[in-house]
Amino acid sequence: MKADIPIFGVILAGGSGTRFWPLSRSQYPKQVLRLLGSESLLQATVQRLLPLIPQERLAIVTNAAQEDVIRMELHQQDWQDIHLWLEPRGRNTAPAIGLAAVRLQDRWPRGVMAVFPADHYIREQEGLLAALQAGAVWADQGYLVTFGVLPTAPETGYGYLERAEPLDQAGTAYRCARFAEKPSLKQARQFLADGRYFWNSGIFMFRRDVIWDALAAHLPEVHQPLATAAQSPEADWAAVYESLPNISIDYGVMEKADRVAMVPLSLGWSDVGTWGALYELFPADAQGNVIVGNACDLASRDCLILSQDRLVATLGLKDTIVVDTPDATLVCHRDRSQEVKDLVAELQERHPAELVHHTTVHRPWGSYTVINEGLGYKVKKIEVLPGKRLSLQLHHRRAEHWVVVQGTARVTIGTTVTEVNPNQSVYVPVETAHRLENPGPEPLAMIEVQTGLYLEEDDIVRLDDDFWRQAAARPKRQDAP
Amino acid sequence: MKADIPIFGVILAGGSGTRFWPLSRSQYPKQVLRLLGSESLLQATVQRLLPLIPQERLAIVTNAAQEDVIRMELHQQDWQDIHLWLEPRGRNTAPAIGLAAVRLQDRWPRGVMAVFPADHYIREQEGLLAALQAGAVWADQGYLVTFGVLPTAPETGYGYLERAEPLDQAGTAYRCARFAEKPSLKQARQFLADGRYFWNSGIFMFRRDVIWDALAAHLPEVHQPLATAAQSPEADWAAVYESLPNISIDYGVMEKADRVAMVPLSLGWSDVGTWGALYELFPADAQGNVIVGNACDLASRDCLILSQDRLVATLGLKDTIVVDTPDATLVCHRDRSQEVKDLVAELQERHPAELVHHTTVHRPWGSYTVINEGLGYKVKKIEVLPGKRLSLQLHHRRAEHWVVVQGTARVTIGTTVTEVNPNQSVYVPVETAHRLENPGPEPLAMIEVQTGLYLEEDDIVRLDDDFWRQAAARPKRQDAP
Repeated sequence: MKADIPIFGVILAGGSGTRFWPLSRSQYPKQVLRLLGSESLLQATVQRLLPLIPQERLAIVTNAAQEDVIRMELHQQDWQDIHLWLEPRGRNTAPAIGLAAVRLQDRWPRGVMAVFPADHYIREQEGLLAALQAGAVWADQGYLVTFGVLPTAPETGYGYLERAEPLDQAGTAYRCARFAEKPSLKQARQFLADGRYFWNSGIFMFRRDVIWDALAAHLPEVHQPLATAAQSPEADWAAVYESLPNISIDYGVMEKADRVAMVPLSLGWSDVGTWGALYELFPADAQGNVIVGNACDLASRDCLILSQDRLVATLGLKDTIVVDTPDATLVCHRDRSQEVKDLVAELQERHPAELVHHTTVHRPWGSYTVINEGLGYKVKKIEVLPGKRLSLQLHHRRAEHWVVVQGTARVTIGTTVTEVNPNQSVYVPVETAHRLENPGPEPLAMIEVQTGLYLEEDDIVRLDDDFWRQAAARPKRQDAP
Repeated sequence: MKADIPIFGVILAGGSGTRFWPLSRSQYPKQVLRLLGSESLLQATVQRLLPLIPQERLAIVTNAAQEDVIRMELHQQDWQDIHLWLEPRGRNTAPAIGLAAVRLQDRWPRGVMAVFPADHYIREQEGLLAALQAGAVWADQGYLVTFGVLPTAPETGYGYLERAEPLDQAGTAYRCARFAEKPSLKQARQFLADGRYFWNSGIFMFRRDVIWDALAAHLPEVHQPLATAAQSPEADWAAVYESLPNISIDYGVMEKADRVAMVPLSLGWSDVGTWGALYELFPADAQGNVIVGNACDLASRDCLILSQDRLVATLGLKDTIVVDTPDATLVCHRDRSQEVKDLVAELQERHPAELVHHTTVHRPWGSYTVINEGLGYKVKKIEVLPGKRLSLQLHHRRAEHWVVVQGTARVTIGTTVTEVNPNQSVYVPVETAHRLENPGPEPLAMIEVQTGLYLEEDDIVRLDDDFWRQAAARPKRQDAP
């Protein structure tokens, strides 16, 4: 095996945040959840690859709306050299991979690129890295390489790959005969008994020029707009993405292409696709329960109970999932967690707020939590990281009262700059430029009482911002992926 | 039937607030919950009796810790003439009835008194009133009268009364042969088939002198301390109650006495003893679900879902009870709701706060809600009813920042009195006497940010109070039941 073919890793991190609602939200998607430890699924995905692929050969593709939250993931680990490629909007995997091929056009024209979901679970890192090295050999020879996980159960929630004959005597790869959709239980049992069927891991590998040509051949409606835009420095990428179809690389290219290989993966793997799948990954107690957080149970069995901070008490449940967050609670039968996305669709009209944000919203400078609101007022707890500051801003329709409860704030109101200590307060009138900064070494926490009849987040004029969010800077960043 | 025997009604309203946790708390017990409409169970109990028993012949016996919350119930209905008799602590029904007999010694020495649980459900008011009038005839003749509900199902959660021969030809009452404890399902089926067994409604009726003598004969350990204390204006009632046994009138007197009668009640009745019992009282939708509040369900059956304000989403549940409150959520199998009290016992050590108070605490002047707290600070929303004011008070260890968000506050700080309007704030330093008042016609709402290292409710010195809660007034009220 030729072990030194360099790989460029592309991590696809667009996610709608519906399957793990209420823990995930559209602005806090699954890949940044700490579902399986202290690292997010995205961070674990990067961590797993770093021994084989250095930071400067890793890129994350995500949609612009999730930029802040992804940046914070990278910042936390001090991964400065990982590329972040933004799509104006999420359009499934084929356009995302197409964009990656565009971005790699000059620096990696005929190099091998590997594509990874950001939010899967893989137990054996070494097995994965070995398989990637094996796959790189075939990708380098022009194959579109898939990675199939040796199934251990008749799963109906996964797509399957059927392998044909081996491509070499060692059996490092097979010709991929076909992609099978999610099967019925009966089919899944047949697949498992048959031995030629593998779970589709969602990991792919190919030479950049090979996938680019394959897109041209099989998905001209994706290839052509991207190719045209790539040639123009003035391209309107938002419009390009508006025109692209929502289509997966599996369906759009892989299933139609000729030279498709499958590298077998024999390792613990899960797509962590539902609350039910997550339950399977946790070690359960003697009663089969997985209980995390501020929860107390009496006599339940085989349940998953997660609480963020409020008290959850359960009694005599069976096969039940309870997920409690500050503004919403889900209670769901364990066998039906794949329907959470339907429930979220049902909620879309009635409760949009609880689908988009958490009550705690993460920002590059820290976070804010809406702790109470009513007619004419809103109360937030604002936390600012040491050395960070919010934008210089003003509001047309609200005034703000700030009471510092921890740390020291440097507050600009109009042209006056003051230090505000715990138990001191300041008042920010309507239409007055102001800025909040934490100059000290400890976290700054304050309570903000907003008053006014219109208290939405969009009543903000950013005059200057450390994070390029002021009005003048915004369009530029959104246009250029 | 002699219809004009006057009755003094005694409503027993002590409750520990465990069975309907998390909606009930020890400081917000079941009898004040609006479980079945816009009135609390206590208010409905009073309302039901008023056509027969006027306010000035009604008394509520409760423990001192629940005084505020009971007073508010009476205040809401403008029931000024109903007596409120306080026990220093709850000691079950025998001491409570003994206390009532003491309080009625002079004004109702040989009159008929009826005792009612404060928290049961009765569908037919007229049937109850007719039965009370029938019972009064027998009570007047010296019987200890029980009221038995004609059973409609083999209930295992109720105690039963076995009737013997009728006391008159009309069958208005029977001799009560025995009290049967909560039966097994098999026994309960036998009881139902037998025809001589009735549910023990917890309603009793007797002449004051008759029950007083019966207590002397069967429960001297209750009778004697009460009799002694009743003769002394300086009696230490707290010590008296400390010495009393925790015992029910059923077990302590009724089961042992000779002349016990049973008046049959043929009406819709429930002790509303569990979440499961409550579910039975609500009209369910076509899927058998009872859904109240901010909830959204997909494909559940036969569930009770209650949410106070946060979003609760349920999916594919069966026979499940979900009760969501701002600080705690219960999820429980419907068949096991009688075990909620065990769950609460389990929680006692780990989560005392969530068992005592709601995050919203009702006060005679309005209410406060703890909306956020952390090291060194606590944030409350305070609402003051029109025309009401809090005590003149000071705190040794905390300062307070107040921001008015609705209405106008009259604020006293030290010797200064100011009017504070919406979007204005004031600061109350440590150790400074202050008072908050709502002089206007609309509700007053404000956000209070407390700062300090000790922020418990007991850091309060009340200098003057409209509700007799200042230190000087307190012992007097607690001593004198």
